[in-house]
Amino acid sequence: MNCNVPTDICFSFSGFHQRGGRTADHADGFGIGFFEGAGCRLFIDVRPAVESAIAALVSGYPIRSMNVVAHIRKATRGEVALVNTHPFMRELWGRYWIFAHNGTLEDFKAELCTAYYRPVGTTDSEAAFCQMLQELRARFPQGEPPLGRLHEAVAEITRELASHGTFNYMLCNGDLLFAHCSTSLAYVLRQAPFAVAHLKDQDITVDFSEVTTPDDRVALIATDPLTDNEVWTAMSPGELLVFRHGVPVPI
Amino acid sequence: MNCNVPTDICFSFSGFHQRGGRTADHADGFGIGFFEGAGCRLFIDVRPAVESAIAALVSGYPIRSMNVVAHIRKATRGEVALVNTHPFMRELWGRYWIFAHNGTLEDFKAELCTAYYRPVGTTDSEAAFCQMLQELRARFPQGEPPLGRLHEAVAEITRELASHGTFNYMLCNGDLLFAHCSTSLAYVLRQAPFAVAHLKDQDITVDFSEVTTPDDRVALIATDPLTDNEVWTAMSPGELLVFRHGVPVPI
Repeated sequence: MNCNVPTDICFSFSGFHQRGGRTADHADGFGIGFFEGAGCRLFIDVRPAVESAIAALVSGYPIRSMNVVAHIRKATRGEVALVNTHPFMRELWGRYWIFAHNGTLEDFKAELCTAYYRPVGTTDSEAAFCQMLQELRARFPQGEPPLGRLHEAVAEITRELASHGTFNYMLCNGDLLFAHCSTSLAYVLRQAPFAVAHLKDQDITVDFSEVTTPDDRVALIATDPLTDNEVWTAMSPGELLVFRHGVPVPI
Repeated sequence: MNCNVPTDICFSFSGFHQRGGRTADHADGFGIGFFEGAGCRLFIDVRPAVESAIAALVSGYPIRSMNVVAHIRKATRGEVALVNTHPFMRELWGRYWIFAHNGTLEDFKAELCTAYYRPVGTTDSEAAFCQMLQELRARFPQGEPPLGRLHEAVAEITRELASHGTFNYMLCNGDLLFAHCSTSLAYVLRQAPFAVAHLKDQDITVDFSEVTTPDDRVALIATDPLTDNEVWTAMSPGELLVFRHGVPVPI
């Protein structure tokens, strides 16, 4: 989720976390990271989201954030363990970056990562994240470049990594949210006039017109649409979007 | 807390978190990091610990860990914000390290930190942590050295940083827990035969003989003793201990 005003994700997370063991089989842990300014709090658990006390806390506790990344894991590489639970977090250019990946990269080894960022766990995902930050740091050692150049660099690095397999991901630094579609990713943009949304995974409805102001903008990006009565835009394979303030930035 | 078997910290945290606004005035946020293997989950909140839903979850949810670092903040440098909330976390040598500081460093600037580790927030504490990791990485670029050499390096770096002010801290990588006393730090070692402990900050008692096995060892380190009927050992100013498996390692 990427927004222009701090927004709570309770409604969307209520549906999403059902996929962590109930409406889908991504039951090997879950994680969710909330940015508050440059600060980030990351909740991770190895239990299935539907059974997790931490997921229950997150579902019911309205943390207001402009950038949230959540992940439910179906382990393909790396054992089920806290250290292998997405999102992963590192610091680059004096900001925290978090990363969540859906898919599997084959023949991609952690030793590709040079010394700056080393994976702690054993997933292809964390190794790819380290590799991305490594290359961004090498290209722009002084700090974050203008958005056009940053997008271009992320796109190049992504193309190389995506050649190893399936690489749907979200990458966020609390300001920008990059979303890359390898096989499956869709987004919905909510803005005035707000309407009623109904979850796919649970029979819950919310009338956003009652909880928003006319200037609010919220982008929600997910592997599969979370609601069944809104217009979700499917991304194309190979497409890399960057969201800021609740909309995709024209590049 | 540093232990030789995964142990829950519910009892100690129940007392400790009272100091975040009730029995002491450290009400500018709190944080607690639990290692599970090399993985680490970090809960942070800007609310006073005594009012925090996250602190309530942690108090009641027995997360079993061999290394836990908790902090209640009384802001002296840097605004009250998530980004300035301890413990801070970074990766070094393929492990996560977390750091919590009690005290204030004067005339210590973040720009001392070179490029590897940049502070995200504005505290002297995070800047000092970045500086420590920076220097450790520079001294041992290949990876973690033997414990004797690591302790010596941490001690040297600490002496320089401590010259700027008060530098009580805990530094932990999920295996080792370094505790440095600048002005005030004490520890208790719990091992068989286990006895009854009574909290200072709340009228709660636990009989550890009922919840332990004869081989368990737990070291608890705190600015002020957490219990009033156990023997706490006060550390000396300038003393740096490193705990592993529930005991201070002889250096």
